[in-house]
Formats: sequence, C-alpha cells, structure tokens
Amino acid sequence: MNEVECRHRVAAAHVARLATTRADGRPHVVPICFALDDDNLVTAVDGKPKRTLDLLRLDNIRAHPPVSVLVDCYENDWSRLWWVRIDGVAAIVVDRAERAYALGLLSAKYPQYQASPPSGAVVSITVSEWSGWEAAPGK
Amino acid sequence: MNEVECRHRVAAAHVARLATTRADGRPHVVPICFALDDDNLVTAVDGKPKRTLDLLRLDNIRAHPPVSVLVDCYENDWSRLWWVRIDGVAAIVVDRAERAYALGLLSAKYPQYQASPPSGAVVSITVSEWSGWEAAPGK
Repeated sequence: MNEVECRHRVAAAHVARLATTRADGRPHVVPICFALDDDNLVTAVDGKPKRTLDLLRLDNIRAHPPVSVLVDCYENDWSRLWWVRIDGVAAIVVDRAERAYALGLLSAKYPQYQASPPSGAVVSITVSEWSGWEAAPGK
Repeated sequence: MNEVECRHRVAAAHVARLATTRADGRPHVVPICFALDDDNLVTAVDGKPKRTLDLLRLDNIRAHPPVSVLVDCYENDWSRLWWVRIDGVAAIVVDRAERAYALGLLSAKYPQYQASPPSGAVVSITVSEWSGWEAAPGK
C-alpha cells in the first residue's frame, strides 16, 4: 500500500491504537482518538474517566519518545483485512497556540469534543515512517 | 471492570492488537487473531501474505518477551466505549504437541483457519495482568 493510500485510510479512521515503551522497556498499548495533519498526528487525554494508570502513556512518552500507532480493519471476510502503521516520535505539547490548534483539529473531526473539549495533555506525533498492508491489494 | 468481565470480552473478540518492544527499545504494534485459553493467549503467523518486516514481531519477542495486548470497542456513542488490556510474557512455541493444541484452539474459533491452518510460528502469551476500562460501567 503506498503512502498516499496509507494517509487516506488513517485520516478516515476514528480510532487508532498507540503503543509506547515503558521506562522498564515493556510495551504498553491504548486506544486513541486522533487527528492527522500532514505529517503530524495529534491526540489528547480527554474527559473520559481514566484511572491514574492510564496516564502511563504520558510518562512513557517522556521517557521514550518513539511510538507506534496502528489503524486497522477487521472483517470476517479476510480478503478485506488491512492495516496501516505509523512509526513516529511523540512529544507532549506545551505551547498554548499549538495546543489550541491541535484541539481545533480534534473538535473538527469529533463532534463529541465540541461539547466537551479534552481537558488533559495533548500529544503530537511526528510521523517518521508509514507502513501499510492489505490482504487483497486493489480489490 | 473486573477480571471475569475482562476475560469474557477478550474471549468474544475476533481481533486484538499486539504491542512488542524492538531490540532498540522502540515499540511495534500489529493486529492479531488469537484464542484465549485460561491464562494463556495464543496467536499464529498465518498464511495471509506478509512482508518480511512483519515478522519483526517474532524477533521482538525473542529479544523482549514482555508484550501488551489490547482489545477495544469504538463507537460514535462514547458512553459505549471500553477496552481490555492484557500484559503478559510471550514465547514462541516449539513443542509440537503444544503447537497442535494452540492451532486447534485457533481453528475452533476461526472457521477461516479450518480451510487454511496457519503455517507460521505460534506465539503463546502468559497473562500476568488484566486491565479493563469502560466509559459507563454497568450501562
């Protein structure tokens, strides 16, 4: 799958999975809502109730900025399976204008955020590599 | 979400995401088909076309056995969101009887495997921790 198609599928997806590395080297994975802006993927810790543990993703990113993000499609018809993986480098957004811009992208994509903007940290992931796979290319 | 409910939701799911740690410490994530057998989750590298790179998951497991597996539900109604994460330790199955047993579990769950059993490596993940979250507990 070429990069144009990878971008198209990621931009259209509503959920992705963010894998990070813990301080001790073990992997960690959580589902995320996100918006894609050119070579930048933004996501926020929102108002959905969280246990403290779930903010482990932020500690992980501070200690190990490289992350991996997966968007995939599962169906019982396995000829329709595909996935796109983004490998990139994450940072917690501290600049106010950059944060406001990212929240604008998220609110534009998710009406749910318009009523209740994310209150937690915003994470920005700079894409370093796109990888894509599909069971039946061109089907 | 208690452990009984976590197990129930994972057993019923048809796809999960497996996060591993690469030799250089960066995380990696792929979608997997799997079967749950008590405190063991099994998955196989199957006949779906793969690029060599995708077998990176096996190299990662050999170098860093700890893995993290996510099952989640995304819907536009965010009161229905939930996820379950399994943290565990993975190993590549070398024993022939253990491999046959795992493939039997996978074929029982996925009719697609009955016509075409997985030809690649079988991975067994021993669960060390269940974590679960739902937006509206008890809804």
